[in-house]
Amino acid sequence: VWVHETVHDHPMKGYELYYWPGIQGRGEFIRLALEHTRARYVDVAREPGGMDRMMAFMNGTEAHAPFAPPFLRHADQTIAQVANVLRYIAPRLALVPPASEPLQTWAHQLQLTITDLVAETHDTHHPSAVSKTYEDQKAAAVERAPSFTRERLPKYLGYFERVLERGDRKHLVGRARSYVDLSMFQVVAGLRYAFPKAMKRVEPTTPLITKVHDVVCEELEPYLTSPRRLAFNEKGIFRHYPELDK
Amino acid sequence: VWVHETVHDHPMKGYELYYWPGIQGRGEFIRLALEHTRARYVDVAREPGGMDRMMAFMNGTEAHAPFAPPFLRHADQTIAQVANVLRYIAPRLALVPPASEPLQTWAHQLQLTITDLVAETHDTHHPSAVSKTYEDQKAAAVERAPSFTRERLPKYLGYFERVLERGDRKHLVGRARSYVDLSMFQVVAGLRYAFPKAMKRVEPTTPLITKVHDVVCEELEPYLTSPRRLAFNEKGIFRHYPELDK
Repeated sequence: VWVHETVHDHPMKGYELYYWPGIQGRGEFIRLALEHTRARYVDVAREPGGMDRMMAFMNGTEAHAPFAPPFLRHADQTIAQVANVLRYIAPRLALVPPASEPLQTWAHQLQLTITDLVAETHDTHHPSAVSKTYEDQKAAAVERAPSFTRERLPKYLGYFERVLERGDRKHLVGRARSYVDLSMFQVVAGLRYAFPKAMKRVEPTTPLITKVHDVVCEELEPYLTSPRRLAFNEKGIFRHYPELDK
Repeated sequence: VWVHETVHDHPMKGYELYYWPGIQGRGEFIRLALEHTRARYVDVAREPGGMDRMMAFMNGTEAHAPFAPPFLRHADQTIAQVANVLRYIAPRLALVPPASEPLQTWAHQLQLTITDLVAETHDTHHPSAVSKTYEDQKAAAVERAPSFTRERLPKYLGYFERVLERGDRKHLVGRARSYVDLSMFQVVAGLRYAFPKAMKRVEPTTPLITKVHDVVCEELEPYLTSPRRLAFNEKGIFRHYPELDK
């Protein structure tokens, strides 16, 4: 791991994660960073009364209220947007080199590219309106899906494969485990759940990504086998609708 | 402006911006930060031979090659993803407090929310496939547009209006001009071009945003009246298709 010469503000207070209970969703990318490093945190909305606390932040008058969950509370700050939260916590958790702005910027750039891939994955089942159900936009979804599974998915994973090829082949950032590897694990796991046929076509062309997934999966085993890890389901980002997996 | 106690690496070399010529597009958010502060920069792809230089970076073997334009070259770094580029240059250009991590994190959070709004704006004319033309997905676009103009657009602008109400009412971040204000100007200008009817409905409910737009517009006047500012057109993000403006 990176040398741990990091700023620890309020280390005893830990982190508060706020996210919809019942799905992995976007919150999972933050959860994996906290779990991989055994950070002390509370998953607030899964605690008794936690949903009320989350909604109070969303509807309150705090100056820095977020647009949407997930968000993190830490050291009297409220921080939203997944990639922004990861950029904030990663130096503190030694999931990126705490003293290197160039590597932090590079890691964040990769994470934002993962964010784009996640957004396009979400849009496969919600091409018309966030506010409508999948069933109400199924026809548009079926029309859109092939451009994702045949064009965008191989393009994104091909890009990350080349990043690994140009690096040490084991880590997306530098030569140690970063939060970007953890997010890549989650993306591969989610895409395998949602698009098993497409991933069977694409993964043979991205063996280094598969290897990162497998190694991270082992590292996360205590978490992944705990009740804290929710199962993928058809309310999250990665949904298995066979008619879209073409 | 923020006190200018910033790290200036290679100040004489200036910045190199790489983006598709012919459109404002996502590159414009970076351009506005450089132009507002009179930073020294080259808009590489608009120079003779510049497109070849840009494609060489895209197709080359550099370790940190970006997924897509725009990207910035500065101090031997290649930096991509608009919000990431802005987070990098803003402390150097005094467009965010250079010494305040909390305000930089907050500014970035707002910028990433603007990024989401921009992506949803883009998807109004490309709901089915990035690789197809608008004409090939016009039916799906017409079906999708109302959920944007009637739900998402008012929701996003309403959020930013509340941020202004809770702050000093003139600046989205703290009490001075930040790059987030410049991006908000661009979003309002683009949305007025693309969706004039919808904006006539929404803007009366967001007077502080309109005011930020107007003041920033004056500050940017030397740039906006120069040949460097391209016109909005139907190849960029903000496109005027009357059938979508419902």
